[in-house]
Amino acid sequence: MASIAVIGYGVVGSGTVELFEKNKEAIRKKCGRDIEIKYILDLRDFPDSPYAEKFTKNFDDILKDPEVEVCAEVIGGVTYAYEYTKKLLSAGKSVVTSNKELVATHGAELLKIASENNVNYLFEASVGGGIPIVRPLNKCLAGNEIIQIAGILNGTTNFILTKMIREQLDFDSALKMAQELGYAEKDPTADVEGYDACRKICILGSLAYGKHIYPKYVHCSGISSITLDDVEYAENAGYAIKLIGNVKSVGDKVFAMVCPRLVSRTSLLAAVDDVYNAICVTCDGADDVLFYGKGAGKLPTASAVVGDIIDAVKHKGRALSISWDECYDEDYVVPYKSDAVSMFIRLKAENADELKPYLSELFGKLIHIERKGRPDDEIAFITPSYIEYDLDSKLEELSRYAIIKSKIRLL
Amino acid sequence: MASIAVIGYGVVGSGTVELFEKNKEAIRKKCGRDIEIKYILDLRDFPDSPYAEKFTKNFDDILKDPEVEVCAEVIGGVTYAYEYTKKLLSAGKSVVTSNKELVATHGAELLKIASENNVNYLFEASVGGGIPIVRPLNKCLAGNEIIQIAGILNGTTNFILTKMIREQLDFDSALKMAQELGYAEKDPTADVEGYDACRKICILGSLAYGKHIYPKYVHCSGISSITLDDVEYAENAGYAIKLIGNVKSVGDKVFAMVCPRLVSRTSLLAAVDDVYNAICVTCDGADDVLFYGKGAGKLPTASAVVGDIIDAVKHKGRALSISWDECYDEDYVVPYKSDAVSMFIRLKAENADELKPYLSELFGKLIHIERKGRPDDEIAFITPSYIEYDLDSKLEELSRYAIIKSKIRLL
Repeated sequence: MASIAVIGYGVVGSGTVELFEKNKEAIRKKCGRDIEIKYILDLRDFPDSPYAEKFTKNFDDILKDPEVEVCAEVIGGVTYAYEYTKKLLSAGKSVVTSNKELVATHGAELLKIASENNVNYLFEASVGGGIPIVRPLNKCLAGNEIIQIAGILNGTTNFILTKMIREQLDFDSALKMAQELGYAEKDPTADVEGYDACRKICILGSLAYGKHIYPKYVHCSGISSITLDDVEYAENAGYAIKLIGNVKSVGDKVFAMVCPRLVSRTSLLAAVDDVYNAICVTCDGADDVLFYGKGAGKLPTASAVVGDIIDAVKHKGRALSISWDECYDEDYVVPYKSDAVSMFIRLKAENADELKPYLSELFGKLIHIERKGRPDDEIAFITPSYIEYDLDSKLEELSRYAIIKSKIRLL
Repeated sequence: MASIAVIGYGVVGSGTVELFEKNKEAIRKKCGRDIEIKYILDLRDFPDSPYAEKFTKNFDDILKDPEVEVCAEVIGGVTYAYEYTKKLLSAGKSVVTSNKELVATHGAELLKIASENNVNYLFEASVGGGIPIVRPLNKCLAGNEIIQIAGILNGTTNFILTKMIREQLDFDSALKMAQELGYAEKDPTADVEGYDACRKICILGSLAYGKHIYPKYVHCSGISSITLDDVEYAENAGYAIKLIGNVKSVGDKVFAMVCPRLVSRTSLLAAVDDVYNAICVTCDGADDVLFYGKGAGKLPTASAVVGDIIDAVKHKGRALSISWDECYDEDYVVPYKSDAVSMFIRLKAENADELKPYLSELFGKLIHIERKGRPDDEIAFITPSYIEYDLDSKLEELSRYAIIKSKIRLL
């Protein structure tokens, strides 16, 4: 008999219990032995739950029970979750988690503790919800050099952008709708400003390149300044605006960033709408591989947690070699402006069209974009690819003649 | 030191050696010990190859060398490949393969031999080329009940259909183009008639439902009878025609089939073009998850082979629990006509429009489809969903008044 503990009975925790109990018989077969949820840790009371007798408020009940082999940490945050995870791994129990903040902040350390104790720390649920990505990247694509990972990693912002594109809602109205539907939190900062996506791209980059990428070193900008005018120009040029997290290797360092980007309509990523997520991995052997599905939500995230529970039970006493190294080099993530990028620019200037010859001189071959009812004092275009530092110098020069209203990178 | 043998130096075999040698240093790190290709088995001579000294024509060199831990069987077919694989597994060597025919025909038996000998038989490359699908299905989604798998599993036919849709080439011209570009073989039967896709859906179904699904029991129809008229009607109704392999559970049996289907343009599958493959897994926890990438080709397939080699080396002496049972029940795959399905119908009849009231009486609520320049003796429509046996009876009745030119199922 393998005993499991679920730590935290919020959305993901209750989903984990629900999915586990629903498919218990099949899970037992896959594990090759009996398996049960013995404890659920939560500070709240759930007297009417069918699992009422499993609840405890005392972490030590779990930590000190030698029967507990695997714990699902689904409380989130980096305080209790961090302490609990360290203690559990050190006590020889495997931990599986959906806690992206914890993995992105302390992943290297926790993986090391797991390895030293011959147990597993698994985190498929921390990126892409129900989408399999951690194992495919770590195992199936292990023979490849990973050239780039680019993904739509946050469902809330993708929902908002989809509403802006499809229904011409402005940002504030689309955010309000997302909040009403339960897709966005009351304080939507972590989603809207890209912090959530940042944690996820850090985890994928750490896994792909073997060294911890800390969120604090990754440039992150959100979608709150995207306007309907930008959306319309992008559409007319054959692009959709998406919040993209991407990471790629640059020699022995990495480039990593989260920002809104214009994604070509010829790319499948542009067709990823609503709360869906998708991750595109570009590698030297398999070329472009894309993973798509529900990036969040109760049962999709629980699906990944339960998959990890099964893997941990099946590999009792054998550490599955998922790990990356701590990184003490503050310059491991290169400055984001050192990357070459094409930029969408929308500017305001009196008689803006008259600027066109000057713009061609400044940037070379531009792609000008039109929109219905474009005012005389507005112009929009896409620049050729430049190192962003150089592009900035050009834009500074340009700002002597025009006000730059929008600047959105291309993917 | 882990010694590897590559059996067969065709497209996939040479790609495997190329990718392995290119990323050797990173692979060594991932394996945690030195690893080298010691033998390449092929009956042909490659005196100018940089790996000339590794070649052998004698299978026993590999079989009897105790240093060889893992063999990549990439010769294809079910004669030599079958014998070699059995001998290697029985001798305690892991085998990884891209051989879909062998896995679809003898998978259960070979997995059993592997398990008995505490070695691994891995086949990520046998479905979807470079697309990770076997491990995600077997591990990441293990907590789910798999409701359905539906995929575009053959790049050649998808290329042909894409050319028919985008460039209005007829089937024969599109096939010729595919042959000229090296995407289709001289004898294109296995691709065009769906046999290749059939093997792959059998492998996925066996994995998902735990019992061997033999290709001989699976109904399979190809794309050679699809006309440009059908393509145009489908487009006008918001569908793309794709060759779809699908499998789903029906009580304790399964439904499995390969045939062209109308796929709604609102589905990402409809956007999968050219030689790309995509597999959509529908499950109770993660909901719809889609995997997309290059389903064939030298390096994409090699990517999956090398990933399996690494996994096999890392798990020396530990069988990774991938398996399914033999199936002795000839009725395990339910008759395909017992499934409920909507059908696209194109028919010929004098003054075809006059049939409309009769058709409504016969089928209930139809969706009629138009095309530019539709002749008076032609009509096309989509039926409501019926058990296919019942639909057939209705079509038989209809055939008293009209000639049914096309019948294509909806997904």
